[in-house]
Amino acid sequence: MPITPEQQAEIDESRAAARPTLRAVSEGMEERLYKAHPVLDHGIVRVIDYMGNDSAITQAARVSYGRGTKSVNSDEGLIRYLMRHWHSTPFEMCEVKLHVKLPVFVARQWIRHRTANVNEYSARYSILDREFYIPAPEQLAAQSTVNNQGRGETLQGAEAARVLDMLREDAMRSYDHYEAMLSQDGQQGLARELARMNLPANIYTQWYWKVDLHNLFHFLRLRADPHAQYEIRAYAEVIADITRDWVPFAYAAFEDYRLGAVQLSAKGAEILKRRLAGETITMENSGMSKGEWREFEAIWGQA
Amino acid sequence: MPITPEQQAEIDESRAAARPTLRAVSEGMEERLYKAHPVLDHGIVRVIDYMGNDSAITQAARVSYGRGTKSVNSDEGLIRYLMRHWHSTPFEMCEVKLHVKLPVFVARQWIRHRTANVNEYSARYSILDREFYIPAPEQLAAQSTVNNQGRGETLQGAEAARVLDMLREDAMRSYDHYEAMLSQDGQQGLARELARMNLPANIYTQWYWKVDLHNLFHFLRLRADPHAQYEIRAYAEVIADITRDWVPFAYAAFEDYRLGAVQLSAKGAEILKRRLAGETITMENSGMSKGEWREFEAIWGQA
Amino acid sequence: MPITPEQQAEIDESRAAARPTLRAVSEGMEERLYKAHPVLDHGIVRVIDYMGNDSAITQAARVSYGRGTKSVNSDEGLIRYLMRHWHSTPFEMCEVKLHVKLPVFVARQWIRHRTANVNEYSARYSILDREFYIPAPEQLAAQSTVNNQGRGETLQGAEAARVLDMLREDAMRSYDHYEAMLSQDGQQGLARELARMNLPANIYTQWYWKVDLHNLFHFLRLRADPHAQYEIRAYAEVIADITRDWVPFAYAAFEDYRLGAVQLSAKGAEILKRRLAGETITMENSGMSKGEWREFEAIWGQA
Amino acid sequence: MPITPEQQAEIDESRAAARPTLRAVSEGMEERLYKAHPVLDHGIVRVIDYMGNDSAITQAARVSYGRGTKSVNSDEGLIRYLMRHWHSTPFEMCEVKLHVKLPVFVARQWIRHRTANVNEYSARYSILDREFYIPAPEQLAAQSTVNNQGRGETLQGAEAARVLDMLREDAMRSYDHYEAMLSQDGQQGLARELARMNLPANIYTQWYWKVDLHNLFHFLRLRADPHAQYEIRAYAEVIADITRDWVPFAYAAFEDYRLGAVQLSAKGAEILKRRLAGETITMENSGMSKGEWREFEAIWGQA
Repeated sequence: MPITPEQQAEIDESRAAARPTLRAVSEGMEERLYKAHPVLDHGIVRVIDYMGNDSAITQAARVSYGRGTKSVNSDEGLIRYLMRHWHSTPFEMCEVKLHVKLPVFVARQWIRHRTANVNEYSARYSILDREFYIPAPEQLAAQSTVNNQGRGETLQGAEAARVLDMLREDAMRSYDHYEAMLSQDGQQGLARELARMNLPANIYTQWYWKVDLHNLFHFLRLRADPHAQYEIRAYAEVIADITRDWVPFAYAAFEDYRLGAVQLSAKGAEILKRRLAGETITMENSGMSKGEWREFEAIWGQA
Repeated sequence: MPITPEQQAEIDESRAAARPTLRAVSEGMEERLYKAHPVLDHGIVRVIDYMGNDSAITQAARVSYGRGTKSVNSDEGLIRYLMRHWHSTPFEMCEVKLHVKLPVFVARQWIRHRTANVNEYSARYSILDREFYIPAPEQLAAQSTVNNQGRGETLQGAEAARVLDMLREDAMRSYDHYEAMLSQDGQQGLARELARMNLPANIYTQWYWKVDLHNLFHFLRLRADPHAQYEIRAYAEVIADITRDWVPFAYAAFEDYRLGAVQLSAKGAEILKRRLAGETITMENSGMSKGEWREFEAIWGQA
Repeated sequence: MPITPEQQAEIDESRAAARPTLRAVSEGMEERLYKAHPVLDHGIVRVIDYMGNDSAITQAARVSYGRGTKSVNSDEGLIRYLMRHWHSTPFEMCEVKLHVKLPVFVARQWIRHRTANVNEYSARYSILDREFYIPAPEQLAAQSTVNNQGRGETLQGAEAARVLDMLREDAMRSYDHYEAMLSQDGQQGLARELARMNLPANIYTQWYWKVDLHNLFHFLRLRADPHAQYEIRAYAEVIADITRDWVPFAYAAFEDYRLGAVQLSAKGAEILKRRLAGETITMENSGMSKGEWREFEAIWGQA
Repeated sequence: MPITPEQQAEIDESRAAARPTLRAVSEGMEERLYKAHPVLDHGIVRVIDYMGNDSAITQAARVSYGRGTKSVNSDEGLIRYLMRHWHSTPFEMCEVKLHVKLPVFVARQWIRHRTANVNEYSARYSILDREFYIPAPEQLAAQSTVNNQGRGETLQGAEAARVLDMLREDAMRSYDHYEAMLSQDGQQGLARELARMNLPANIYTQWYWKVDLHNLFHFLRLRADPHAQYEIRAYAEVIADITRDWVPFAYAAFEDYRLGAVQLSAKGAEILKRRLAGETITMENSGMSKGEWREFEAIWGQA
């Protein structure tokens, strides 16, 4: 259960209090505000605040005095143009603030995106909750045999059961000992900043994370990608859905020009041109290494 | 005249359209939104959007589920604590977007603050307006004789008149030639991206500038400082007033712990302790260089 | 003349003094150090310092204890893999520091690359030299009739002569007045921080610019691109040559995967697949807008 | 034992190979290069590369053509001036690259310093070593009773023994299970990116970390501070010693103006002035809150 009834009550209270503003509003995002979107077994994503909408992007691109919109059509066309030509600064003019509950090993990947603002729950100052990520059976995957940093088949039977037992028992025992070390009942009680070192990387932490739309798109491109680890991808997919509601034109342009885009090397572009001209290209006459050729064929097929 | 009647009409229209939002609202900032605050002779500062208020700072610091506020008192106390102990991330959770019209030489200082988002009016794409900063007579200062990068006395009489004439005439002639080079009337017309090179640094440009509250405070500390060049300080002071209306508790803490603060070196702190103990310290027994001692005495007086 | 004999003597002196180091060395870069590479009419690019070489990239990727190199072959293959898969952090592990002399309007474009360190010659503190960029006749281009921010045909005859006269005369007069305003001969002398506002954007400034290799590649991709303004491209091309000498494997990978790469939108990739399958696609059944189709056809031709 | 004999052999080999360079050299840093400086029980700090020295700071500040040095004296004076007046860009012109082995909970604090380049050993790709931080008995501290995020007295006797037993046993058991889950001996073997989630936060990781001198000083000011957690402070102190050898003038200025500096609020400065004038100030007439007054008195004593 990701959130408690008390937390839900706080959310409901926050959603009850609409107030007038002169700022740009995104109807799709107002619908999302504060709600706890569940991710994994105990995780959540909540929108705490946002700045701007599709029109704010074109308004910034035009450095205009009034609202950016001349017409809905011209907004969409300009947004697509800006995305296609890598004009990133207008997209930086939108901002979103999220409250995220996530396992520590996911947080460690996430934080590598440096152009963002983060305020994490402090385990020096406070005591962490007894909440651990335990993979669902269908996510319990073997090491990939072709990719050093990927997953292969799902674990089966006794092995799967063994793994789940170990993860669950180690989590519970570590937390029991965490509590035992902290306890001031008949003893001094270890400092919180030390006791936390006993907790495994599947414990949940939480943070406020604030990022501009350009850098959010960069995060989504890398983390909603099939090569990303499943657990962070689960968060990226929820955030992608939210972003589609927030800035529908910008999101559609992002899908076409980034998420679904294909990057061709100079060599790759040359090969495609030769193929279009009727030539047959094989790995041998491609000039590509084995690895490159395999990746190229996976997209463009054989010819 | 900083803005045209058409621009004022666009501003009035923007201010007429309040809409409901579930987001955190700052009443002081709603009052400021879109209005053109004049700076120098043709410059403006306009608030285009904002995210967060004082409560949003404490809400982020607590990584809370509901609104941050427990009570107004505890918000103020926590904000002062965070500022005093250099906990900067909660202040990064507020954001503001400004539309600024400013002379190019001011823009060149401003842009050195790298942790911000900027979208500038493009003189490759568009034609700049005939608007130049000409200092008011009381700002027409001589080179300082003690500070290589400062101002001294105000210029007087014939010299002041000569300077103003040169600035005005060169600005007008440069702009006349800019127009003449661009003109396609009977000639090809020089590319805009080239023609702009003829324009002097007192021409006005404009941009959208977006920054978080922590970095805005850093900007204000450096640029609202008496050592900052007057022209950028004029902008910083207007923005400081706006910020006070936006986040009154945070601004008060900033005034006490940053703007009005005094930084003592290890040596300086030692000297003050000796003075408090009744000792008389002179430059000779201070261990400070001449320059340091002069700066120290300017604050702490002789003893 | 980009540099004076005194400056050349300082450069020669710097190049005379080799000293032993245990650090990674790039022979190609040692050859470049300190030399003044000319750009435009008075500009220069000088390498002041560098950190790392091709091996340092793979060494960081492997977080290794010794030098990164297992073999030259494996270095090259790993560097290509890292570039192809957007693993940017190993490239951030190389750094370069340049001394650049450049026109102010070029500096204003350049500074938009925020992830770099800059120390600019201060016109508040010092007096600028009388050096202005005046385009060579073949660079004196008309405004493009198809691209709002581009150049068209070269200006001819009387118009070209008129433009050059205006640029030269305005530059000289502005500088004469700059000197006249600063002069303390029989007058107080205007503050340097004010007098500089009279100088046009083609005056030369200079700075130290330090950047990591990943961000340098990003700079080169945008600024060595045919759509970049010629004047900044001239700098990017010189820096690209220097970078090729510094990290030859990384530069070759950059050329293949970035500089010569082609980005296909989801739509564009779909169209190419249909073409490869023998279908004829026109703008009408492409699903692309007119602008997108024009850009697509420019690369892939008609079919 | 922080490093293996094989690693030491790689280090020795790296230190054996001096080569000529034209770049700025720091003798103190050449002495440090590659060596494994031990920290905590299994941690290390190694200098992998550096750029610049004291003279490079003044050379950048002057945007000079030759080496920065006019004289050793003027270098020192200028560096102190730059530090005192918060001119940070010349310090950004030096860069250092470190190889650090550190517990994960320390890495999580460290990574909050965003203006740096990091390449971490990947536990998705590789298998972590069986190395855990176990605090020395004198570092096994109770929770502070006055500071929510600090340490109090050292744990004694049976409680200390119990804590150490739990930390050691949980670390070993977690690692045993990590190995058991990964094993492909008679089973598929869990993906490395999943198995790592069972490891506690005191396991050691390692990374390459590259940062400029300005941001390094900021890191040292926060992390070599008595309020920083002991474990990260241990790293900061080793790096501080290294930095003193690298840029002795800059480090001395940093010690005087940052590390040993005292920040006075506007209120605090006012109180000191009144005290110097002979007045007696108490908490009641200070205008400070209880917390502020306690911190003020801790530095300035009673009067």
